[in-house]
Order: sequence, then C-alpha cells, then structure tokens
Amino acid sequence: MAIKRLVSAKIEVDFQTLALRVIARCAELAQLTETPGMLTRTFLSPAIRDCHRLIAGWMESLGLRSSVDAMGNLRGFPSSEPTPSNAIRPRLLIGSHIDTVPNAGAYDGVLGVMLGLALVEASRTLELPFDIEVIAFSEEEGVRFRVPFLGSRALAGTPDSQLLALRDANGVTLEAAIRSFGLDPNEISAAKLDENTFAYLEFHIEQGPVLESLGLSLAAVKAIAGQSRRTIVFAGSANHAGTTPMEMRRDALAGAAEWIVAVENFARAYPGLVATVGRLQVAPGASNVVPGEVRASLDIRHASDVERTTATETLLASARTISEKRGLRFSCHEDLEQSAVAMDAELTAAAERAIAAAGQESKTIISGAGHDAMILAEVVPSAMIFLRTPGGISHHPDETVLVGDVEQAIRAGITFLKELALKQ
Amino acid sequence: MAIKRLVSAKIEVDFQTLALRVIARCAELAQLTETPGMLTRTFLSPAIRDCHRLIAGWMESLGLRSSVDAMGNLRGFPSSEPTPSNAIRPRLLIGSHIDTVPNAGAYDGVLGVMLGLALVEASRTLELPFDIEVIAFSEEEGVRFRVPFLGSRALAGTPDSQLLALRDANGVTLEAAIRSFGLDPNEISAAKLDENTFAYLEFHIEQGPVLESLGLSLAAVKAIAGQSRRTIVFAGSANHAGTTPMEMRRDALAGAAEWIVAVENFARAYPGLVATVGRLQVAPGASNVVPGEVRASLDIRHASDVERTTATETLLASARTISEKRGLRFSCHEDLEQSAVAMDAELTAAAERAIAAAGQESKTIISGAGHDAMILAEVVPSAMIFLRTPGGISHHPDETVLVGDVEQAIRAGITFLKELALKQ
Repeated sequence: MAIKRLVSAKIEVDFQTLALRVIARCAELAQLTETPGMLTRTFLSPAIRDCHRLIAGWMESLGLRSSVDAMGNLRGFPSSEPTPSNAIRPRLLIGSHIDTVPNAGAYDGVLGVMLGLALVEASRTLELPFDIEVIAFSEEEGVRFRVPFLGSRALAGTPDSQLLALRDANGVTLEAAIRSFGLDPNEISAAKLDENTFAYLEFHIEQGPVLESLGLSLAAVKAIAGQSRRTIVFAGSANHAGTTPMEMRRDALAGAAEWIVAVENFARAYPGLVATVGRLQVAPGASNVVPGEVRASLDIRHASDVERTTATETLLASARTISEKRGLRFSCHEDLEQSAVAMDAELTAAAERAIAAAGQESKTIISGAGHDAMILAEVVPSAMIFLRTPGGISHHPDETVLVGDVEQAIRAGITFLKELALKQ
Repeated sequence: MAIKRLVSAKIEVDFQTLALRVIARCAELAQLTETPGMLTRTFLSPAIRDCHRLIAGWMESLGLRSSVDAMGNLRGFPSSEPTPSNAIRPRLLIGSHIDTVPNAGAYDGVLGVMLGLALVEASRTLELPFDIEVIAFSEEEGVRFRVPFLGSRALAGTPDSQLLALRDANGVTLEAAIRSFGLDPNEISAAKLDENTFAYLEFHIEQGPVLESLGLSLAAVKAIAGQSRRTIVFAGSANHAGTTPMEMRRDALAGAAEWIVAVENFARAYPGLVATVGRLQVAPGASNVVPGEVRASLDIRHASDVERTTATETLLASARTISEKRGLRFSCHEDLEQSAVAMDAELTAAAERAIAAAGQESKTIISGAGHDAMILAEVVPSAMIFLRTPGGISHHPDETVLVGDVEQAIRAGITFLKELALKQ
C-alpha cells in the first residue's frame, strides 16, 4: 500500500511536468507566424514549415519516425523500421491541426498534437498492445482556400480534383501551393489512414463557455454540429459618393448591411442556431466611392441537420429578396455543407469513464465547432475530449488553458489507453 | 463673309481633331495602372511616374517646360527661359489631377489636364497677353493616405508637418513616399503657386446625372459642396463562430451593419444630403470567426455647411448609441472637414458667357464632388467647367465622355481665354 502510494505520487508529478511542457510547447509554436505581431498560420505557409521542423524534432526524440505527407500533414509514425511483427500491430491515431485563423490563440489545434506527444511519452512504460501514430494536420480552419479540413480529408481519402483546383486570395491553386511546398499532389492518395488504425482520438479546447459554466475540466464529445458555409456576392454599381443622389444608388454595402442585420436577428430568435458573417470584402473600397460589390461569408451551425438546412435556406432567401428590392445582383457559392457527425459511441463511453476515473463528473457535450474528428469519423471510430476554455475565448490571442486541466487530460488519456489495451 | 465662313469652318475641324486627341490621350493614360486588369493610380505609384513621362513629352512638344515639384505635381511652365519681359507676365493656371480611385474610369481628372494642353495648342495663334501653365496634380482622391488634395494643397501652401507624418496602409509615411519617388519633402514650399498667377481654370467631368438629365454639354460650377470624412472604428470581441452563443457575442460587424442601414435611411430622408460608407475593413476577417473589429469610412456632403455639420453629428451619435447598446467600443477619426467653397463670381460669369457663346443654354451647377479648384480658390480666383457624364457613371470603368462635349469644352475654353485677354 505504501509502495502503491509512492508510485501514484510519482505519476502525479510526471503528469504535471508533462502538462507544463505541453503548454510551453504550445507557446513556443505560437511564435511561428506569417504575420508579425500576431499568430496567423495558414495552409502550407512558411510558418507551417517552421512548425514541422520543431514538432518533428520532438517526435523523433520519442522514437517516432516523422514525415510530411502530400497534403502537408506531419506524421509521427510508430517506429523507424516496420518489421513483420509491428506491420500488423493495430494502431491508434492521436492528433489535431496546426494551422490557425488570423490573429489566433496558441491552443486551438496545437494543444491536441502536443497532448498526443505527451501520451506517447507517458505510455512508454505501459507496453500497450497497439502503436500510436501522432498527427499534426496541415489545414483545418479553411482560411487560405475557404474550404476547411484539407488535412484530414487526405487521410479519409476524400479530396478530389475539384479541391486541387481551388484558388487562394492570390489566385494560387491548392495544387500549386502543395507543389511549391516541395510536395507532390499525385501522392495524396498515399496519405490515407493506415489500414491497421482502429481508432482516432482528438483532444481540443472547447472554444466555448459551457465547461467553464459547469465548473468542469473535461468532457467527452458526443457529436459535432453540422455546418453550412456560403460565399454571397451582392453586386450593385460603383459610383461617385459626392454626385450620386441617394435614390439613384445601387449600393452593394448598404444591401449587405441590411442582410447582416437580418441574419443576426434571425439567429438570435432561433434556439440552438449560430449564424455568422465573419468575412466581408468591399470593392472598390474607397471612402468616396459607392460600393459596387460586396463578398460576404455566411457560417451557420446547428446540432440538427434539418434545422440547419432550413435556416440556411431562409437566410439565403433573405439575401435574394434584399438584392431584388435594391436592384442588386445576388449570387451564392457553396463552400461547405457538412452534416452533423456523431462520435463513436463505444469510444465516447470509454472517454467518459476515463474522465470520471480522473476524478471528475462525467459529461458529454455537442461541439459547435467543426474538428478533424468529424472527417476521420467517416473512416475510423473516433472520439474527442474537450478541455475547458477560460472565458470561452478562442480564435483570439487571449485564448488559454489551465495547467490543471491539461494534467487531467493526460491522466484521462492514459486511462483511456489502458482501457483500449484491455480490448485489443 | 465667305472668307470668314471658311476660317470658321477650318476652326471647327481643328476643334474636333483636338477633342479626338484629348480623348485618345485619356485612353492612353488609362493603360498606366498599378493593378493589372483595372485602372488604379494612387499617389506617387510607379504608374504616376509613367504618366509623368508621357504627359511631359506632350508638354514639351507644345513648348512648355515640364518639371515635377516636391509634392509630385507635374508642371508645364510657360517657357523654357524666363526673360525680363515674361517674368512679369500674368499667368493662367489650367489643370486637374492624374491620380485615380481603385478601378477607375479614364476621364476623372485626366480630362482636365488634357483639355489644358488642348487649349495651349488651340490658343497659340491668339497672342494672349498672359501665359498659360498646365498642371497635372499628383493627388486629389485621397486613396493612399486617406487625405485628399495633397497635390493642390502644395500649390496653396497649406501642407503642414502633420500631413507629412500620415501613413498609408503599408505604414509608409507621406514623407517617405515623396523621398522614395526621388523628391525632396523640404522643397514642398517651392511648389507654391507662381505669384503672377491671376486665375485657375479646371475642366472636369460632372460625375453625376444632372447635365445629362438637362440635355446639356457643359455647365459652369457655382460652388463645391462641403465634405466631412471620418474613419469610425467599432471594436468588439473576436470569438469562435461555432461555439459562441448569439447572446454572448460582441460582433463588431453586426454593429457596423446596423449603423450602415441607419446612415442610408437618414440620408435618404434628408434633402440634398449624400452619405456614404465606402470602405469597410473587417478583422480578423475569417468566415468562422465573429468579427472583433470593423473600420468604416463615412463621407457626408451637402451644399450647406450647417446642414452637413448637423448630419455628421447625428450619424456619429448614432454610431455611438449602437456601440453602447452592443457593448462595443467606438472611436472616430476626422479625416477631412472641408467647407463648401464658392467659385470666383466674375470668372464663373465669364465661363457662363463662354458656354453660351458655344451655342448652349447657360447653366450653373453645385458640385457634389470635391475638386482641386476648391483648394486653389483659397489663394487665387478659380473657375470650373463641368462636362456631361453619360449615365452619371464615374469612379467606374464605364465612365466616358462624348466627343461633341469635349469639342464644346475646347470652344468654350477659347472664348473664355479671349475674354480674359480683353481684361488684362
């Protein structure tokens, strides 16, 4: 009994050390940015390459074999040399993404990768009957090409030629971006999930206020809400701001503004719905010119696919009506139509038990944010564990995590691995 | 009588040839742009240097001595060598600006410079008792530094050290921009209007629908409406679009949109007022992030200074109220406060007579747009003549002029010069 306590006390210290290192590494990676003075790291930017260098070093020091696949995902494979015996060993994939939104915080995505490395380190003495692959997805946010989950799509085997033809704001295609990073788009199919992989586990900050309001460190994610994303263009007529009487204008921004107010009013009155216009580009964009064209993004989420679809149709109809009334041309492009995705029931139950074993009330949650686990769930049983987000603040430099919560995540993660070990 | 008719017929042909050349030169200059595929020429861009080269050549071929002053204005001085007799000759300044708004038309500004050259050419046989200086102002639109009339301010002697410290979107100061064009900001005071200058004449497209609706080619400008320009910042909190419930958001764009709708409603109900939000920058500007900050321009114009000031105060109060209601921080920067400016009564009457002599009903007009003449009027008697703008379309690639109207402008210009000659 005395010995057991000693061992237990030793592990406690290790978990705290690991948690502190996880946080320190997230902070170190947050220095790698494409925009001075703020953290912005978009798909295959030079800052992503800098991240690869750093994380690959940490992977190698744990005995993982690092390589970058053709979609730019950094993979930490279980061993440097496959042998007949480990070639058929089952594999658990743990990870998250390392791209960010503009002016981001340090933990969204990156934390899940660092926790993957921490679990590899903490489980080394467990002699697990499966291998762990750690992955740092190259793209989840959809900033550069306005389509999210490029990294995880490559593992799920779903990227198509249309995707490769996408163009960023500078007119660079996804295919060209991959090539100029030194990768070969023809090899994307080789990025597919290893066929021995039996499960995917992703830790992620909640990015919302729920866990904090409940006083909880962790929660298992039951499902991820569906998302609809659209780009809407209001086209009117650019004209001189001083000489065009108000009644003769076809002001694209005034039309867009009327619609944005309508979007907000609608979503406020619709339970469980969030609707956001986050990007707005006004052309020509001079103070003395009536705006001729506005491109606006629309992001709609709801736990129910039916309700989300209805809401999307209503808000697009509203944009069309406003455009017609004002003599504007309206057009709409579908950037994303993502159904709600349930996480694997068995794995989620195991995650719940692991969280409870770490000494916390068990709780499942619906994720309002999309995650790579949503894409992986198409091809492999997947589970997610959320960490509390102080103030619910995310996609913002003030985003943070509590050391104690990261420690709990490592503790729950180890319990989860042990339970998986019993089932193999 | 027969001889007179013959001479008269000959001049008709010359005016048409000159008008066609004016238009051809405007079209040629419209090829000089900083943005491929559209015409955009901001203060001291490489495209401005290209314009200087071309226009200086045309100036020299008319016997004008070309040089660029320290604010980047291209000057076509009356002769290459001042002599005791011409050093005290009175001087008429004719010109307009050669910078443009983004995605501009070919005639806004440039036409007035080309008409100045056409009048120098057409008046060569008149033996006028005064010299003509033609000027191509470097900056009138206020695009690059968000402050207009930089070119004409240098002639009026009004630029101050605050102005030189202005920064463009890339953080470059006005002073640095001048230096990197190869000019010396310490010599701006030497750009001042020559003290022998007795009048300024500016031809410009109306940029509005009034002359077309009256079926007129030309009109003398009686006054230029005052302008207020502001930059307004709505600051809220950037957060995740999927996980932040609607009622917990402080969405800067939703606030700005509510205000833009209010601006439009207010201006529509206010006779003679135009109010425009032409520039809107949304940060961080990703589809899945609630906007944390919006910077919006406000441009307000009215023929009455009192009414303009009242309207400006009302609309800023509206922005403040909306911000408070939504928990946003509001701030406002004054970019321009320009009183209405009357043109010189005597010169305007002469312009009216010249237009009537060209065979057209005489009409004066209030300009809703600001012009360099507004700045020059502070230091020298100034007159403006507007040309009809088909469709009222300006600040747009479809902007155009009618050949016949340009011909009428040259005809009226020559009559105007002759009347000035009688008075010297």
